[in-house]
Amino acid sequence: MQYSIGVEYALHCLVYLIDLPVDSPIGIKELSAYQGLSETYLSKIFGKLSKAGIVDSVPGVKGGYKLAKSPDAITFWDVVTAVEGDQPIFQCQNIKDKNYFYRSKENNDACASCTPSDCLINMVMLDAEEKMRDSLRSRTLQWMNEELERTLPKETREDARAYFKKNIKVK
Amino acid sequence: MQYSIGVEYALHCLVYLIDLPVDSPIGIKELSAYQGLSETYLSKIFGKLSKAGIVDSVPGVKGGYKLAKSPDAITFWDVVTAVEGDQPIFQCQNIKDKNYFYRSKENNDACASCTPSDCLINMVMLDAEEKMRDSLRSRTLQWMNEELERTLPKETREDARAYFKKNIKVK
Repeated sequence: MQYSIGVEYALHCLVYLIDLPVDSPIGIKELSAYQGLSETYLSKIFGKLSKAGIVDSVPGVKGGYKLAKSPDAITFWDVVTAVEGDQPIFQCQNIKDKNYFYRSKENNDACASCTPSDCLINMVMLDAEEKMRDSLRSRTLQWMNEELERTLPKETREDARAYFKKNIKVK
Repeated sequence: MQYSIGVEYALHCLVYLIDLPVDSPIGIKELSAYQGLSETYLSKIFGKLSKAGIVDSVPGVKGGYKLAKSPDAITFWDVVTAVEGDQPIFQCQNIKDKNYFYRSKENNDACASCTPSDCLINMVMLDAEEKMRDSLRSRTLQWMNEELERTLPKETREDARAYFKKNIKVK
């Protein structure tokens, strides 16, 4: 059970969108060429990011994508849910209410008060997921950008800036 | 992105295995009939639980499955990994080392020092997953059994005990 590779693609692409001058959108073609990723698949991922309000599509020959809001207002969790949706990882099918006795006694009192949410197993699983979500909500793209600036070799970021400066169509 | 329904099935079945007299294995047939689950699919799930050392298969006409160790030595995380495996949810394909410059400079120093583990994005995602894992490691089957005893209507547990007592083949 894994997130689709789209989560990895999205987060890596956003690194370059944060680091660009304002009003200089990057095209899917440039992002995919730079990182060696499938252009078609990346288009789909950016469609999801756009729908979630994380990036804005700038139409036209000089178009592409740019962040739709400040990087300190976009968390890792926002990106994960944009690509994967926000349904729980754990599938509760409310098994406890389908057992032999409840199946055969439609008006059973114990069952009538049961909902998926009050199943102990479901609660333990969702509580654990919430710990993961909280951790991802605490990390913003702004934080990521600052960490990369602090930890990556200077050359790595300069190479990327130079590449996209050359390849983007500055207005 | 979701866990397979097998995680839900496994946890719900284990509730009944904890609650049985020692040396009274329950068969897949009884477990599936009681809960209205597919017998074939449940067999596959129990194959995984057995391989992971969570349950023991008791062969023969009076056979079935029983816990392989004390319920306080089995955590929710053990059950999840038995069914789903323990690979990370986040797929790191080390995109950062495949970019335009690193692709074209095989001996690039920055790249030579890179491994998937030191990608910031991978570290954030794995750290978040670890929060979820820790939460699931903190909950044992013994704890679950005590909570169910405390919170479920008395009748619910007694119904289940009576059902399996009638249907299991006591040695």
